[in-house]
Amino acid sequence: MEVTWVAMAMTEGDRLAARSAEAECGRIPSPLPNLKMQLRYVVIPKTAYRKHYDIISNRVLWFLQHYLYDPSSNSFNYQRLQDAWRNGYRVANQAIAEAVNAEIERAETTPVVMLHDYHLYLVAAMIRERHPSIITQQFIHIPWPDSRCWHFLPSNITQEIYRGLVGNDIVGFQTERDARNFLEGARTILEGAEVDFEEGTVVWQGHRTLARAYPISISVTEERRIVQSLAGRRAAEKILPLLGEQTIMRVDRIEPTKNIPRGFQAYAQMLEEHPELRGKVKFLAFLVPSRQSLPEYKRLNSEVLKLVEEINARYGDASWKPIEVFCDNDRTRALAAMQFYDVLLVNPIIDGMNLVAKEGAVVNKRNGLLVLSRTAGAFQQLGKAAIPTSPLDVAETAEALYTALTLPPEERERRARLARQIVEQNNLQTWLTRQIEDINELLDLARLAAENEERQREQSEPESEPELAPSPLSLSAG
Amino acid sequence: MEVTWVAMAMTEGDRLAARSAEAECGRIPSPLPNLKMQLRYVVIPKTAYRKHYDIISNRVLWFLQHYLYDPSSNSFNYQRLQDAWRNGYRVANQAIAEAVNAEIERAETTPVVMLHDYHLYLVAAMIRERHPSIITQQFIHIPWPDSRCWHFLPSNITQEIYRGLVGNDIVGFQTERDARNFLEGARTILEGAEVDFEEGTVVWQGHRTLARAYPISISVTEERRIVQSLAGRRAAEKILPLLGEQTIMRVDRIEPTKNIPRGFQAYAQMLEEHPELRGKVKFLAFLVPSRQSLPEYKRLNSEVLKLVEEINARYGDASWKPIEVFCDNDRTRALAAMQFYDVLLVNPIIDGMNLVAKEGAVVNKRNGLLVLSRTAGAFQQLGKAAIPTSPLDVAETAEALYTALTLPPEERERRARLARQIVEQNNLQTWLTRQIEDINELLDLARLAAENEERQREQSEPESEPELAPSPLSLSAG
Repeated sequence: MEVTWVAMAMTEGDRLAARSAEAECGRIPSPLPNLKMQLRYVVIPKTAYRKHYDIISNRVLWFLQHYLYDPSSNSFNYQRLQDAWRNGYRVANQAIAEAVNAEIERAETTPVVMLHDYHLYLVAAMIRERHPSIITQQFIHIPWPDSRCWHFLPSNITQEIYRGLVGNDIVGFQTERDARNFLEGARTILEGAEVDFEEGTVVWQGHRTLARAYPISISVTEERRIVQSLAGRRAAEKILPLLGEQTIMRVDRIEPTKNIPRGFQAYAQMLEEHPELRGKVKFLAFLVPSRQSLPEYKRLNSEVLKLVEEINARYGDASWKPIEVFCDNDRTRALAAMQFYDVLLVNPIIDGMNLVAKEGAVVNKRNGLLVLSRTAGAFQQLGKAAIPTSPLDVAETAEALYTALTLPPEERERRARLARQIVEQNNLQTWLTRQIEDINELLDLARLAAENEERQREQSEPESEPELAPSPLSLSAG
Repeated sequence: MEVTWVAMAMTEGDRLAARSAEAECGRIPSPLPNLKMQLRYVVIPKTAYRKHYDIISNRVLWFLQHYLYDPSSNSFNYQRLQDAWRNGYRVANQAIAEAVNAEIERAETTPVVMLHDYHLYLVAAMIRERHPSIITQQFIHIPWPDSRCWHFLPSNITQEIYRGLVGNDIVGFQTERDARNFLEGARTILEGAEVDFEEGTVVWQGHRTLARAYPISISVTEERRIVQSLAGRRAAEKILPLLGEQTIMRVDRIEPTKNIPRGFQAYAQMLEEHPELRGKVKFLAFLVPSRQSLPEYKRLNSEVLKLVEEINARYGDASWKPIEVFCDNDRTRALAAMQFYDVLLVNPIIDGMNLVAKEGAVVNKRNGLLVLSRTAGAFQQLGKAAIPTSPLDVAETAEALYTALTLPPEERERRARLARQIVEQNNLQTWLTRQIEDINELLDLARLAAENEERQREQSEPESEPELAPSPLSLSAG
């Protein structure tokens, strides 16, 4: 199958690559040697890019969709918002849509378009406008809130988002709850929309869109390969001396949704309530700095490090450092370390899915347990195997950590095995296969419709050339 | 029909009444002469009452259910929350449940229990525990958020709330969206619950609960009677000299959800953008101070009055005062005034329903238009007749006000008539009738089941005395 990846140029390198000698009509071969695809960078002016990526995508949509927004305080500047929408978000979506449209027009067989995430809500409708019969599918990685939250944005923006998304044939979400929220929103935001909650469909202006849940996952084999690699084994050797008698770990981007401070507070509260654990239970935190161009993130960074220092000063001494923080982006080390946790703390305030919980479940070798937020998307699959917690309640999280550390071995083993099996049986392949099955069903329908039309046309004017739907997608094993 | 109203004693007067000579087993005749009912006050210690009413009900549940909560800031103190829950909310609910149980035990025929609102989430389960066959119904006046918001509370509290509510046979909400959010929450919060979204039911531990939408309304005749009363006519006389060439009005409790400051800001922005309206379009605001024991509310009070002064200083002069504020609780005056608005601004951030929008629609005599938040429950019924706005967007609200003021007369008339008809056809009677029909359906079912059981018992042991379900409720016309 021929694949072209259309992506926004983010860095100076991307911009150079798009203009390089290698580039042919804006396409370059994939930089990843094992992926047979072409890459097409879309370049827009830097100010438009900042308005698209920093302002609308990461300051507005990210926070709103993660419920990190109090409508009684004035956190958005609506004039700036409208400017960033017009001159950033729309510009970027238009540029991506044009590049996709160009690819569609150049393709020899009718392609299928798969779009990703909250940066591209307007693209599908822009493609459909030019190519009404192309099948488009969009997967949304982050939560989809109640329609009331969507109305916190200006009406023109909310409506454009919904009109853009129902340009798709399928919109995929992490959980059923997100898909239902999307449908409920369509009912009230798109005038004249017909929503069928049981079928999971919205019909608007004659076009039908399916809303589906496809919980995303990890490869499983790839994570285990990394752990077994030379680099993985070296990283493990360096982690081993840092473990306590028992070890809590967390692996997260430094990000408000991840709730890192409350995790450390819960650990401190546990040490306060159970002094016998001091000197015994360590906390290794693998934290990846993120979005440092946004002031909220910079502030959070220093807040987290300050809190760690305070807790270490309070509960540690010359011979024992309660919390050890690794503050960089080293996935191999994090995966290697997760072999050894007794408890993996995954306590996001809200999370679309949370893949760290799934990675931990399959690489851990110590019957380690998950302490998992009820508000993580992953809770729907892993809740049964985890110790649940309410993310904002430090006392409850402290208790959950204690429970996880003190559960009897056979129960630890049972839960760790259950978590592992759930992830093994619902890996990245499952995620992709389910989407491709749904797309193929639509392709079948389109082909049947085209064949019927052809037959009817043959009977009336036999010389005309019918347009056939593309052949079904197939997924290679790799 | 014999009705007993069980209510929490709120004031010193209530407490005295409960202990008065008139009281017989805690019951006193209704203070409202036209209602044939008895009143039973439930008295709990004042500290428990404050924890129940001020802390859990009004600071926690009210804000959470109105989405006025940013989970990344620490606005709840969880230790205080747990204390208020245990020693306030549970205590109050237990006391109410005991009083209701005593009434059930004293009643000559099997009663039906109707519970109201967010102060009493635990009562139904407490009644069911003692009287499993009693039919209980609870109507929730405020929004029901996405289950992710519920998980911002400690797990024990969230679970107790849901377990309490599924003690009811029917839970009523303002909108379909609220009912669906409730069902979605039941699916994830109540372990083992079976939720049927199409039927609108949740079955938990063998008991079935219906979730239904009953949009609340106003009497219509009562509001018009007040306007026509002597007091109403007198109030109107005093309002007339204050009107501008055109007049915007609002009637609200001074309450964060009502979004009063952004309403005044929108008016100011409109005067800024359309200087021709200065000296012509007035704004009369009927504001009722509310919950003055909570510091947030006090702050809002002064913030609102300060903003009014600023706008009046900026756009007014000796001969013209742009905004006129009436800051007290005079419903007759507000109703009388609403006859004369050209635009009624109802721009809550979030509102379960909003009855002011409905009152305005039926008492107004000038083809006045509603500017209405998309996030008000009333929007589902009145949206078509209103000029919609997104509550947080001051620019959009300013534009909506301008549109409402400048719409051609025939369109004003059409929309005003439509709004009036919608409210007339969906009045308080409709609201009550729909609930009673659903209750009667359950009573029918229970009677049929009891009769079947009786028939079977007669065949085996003919002497036994069957317990019959109560007779259906009927609603008198008054």
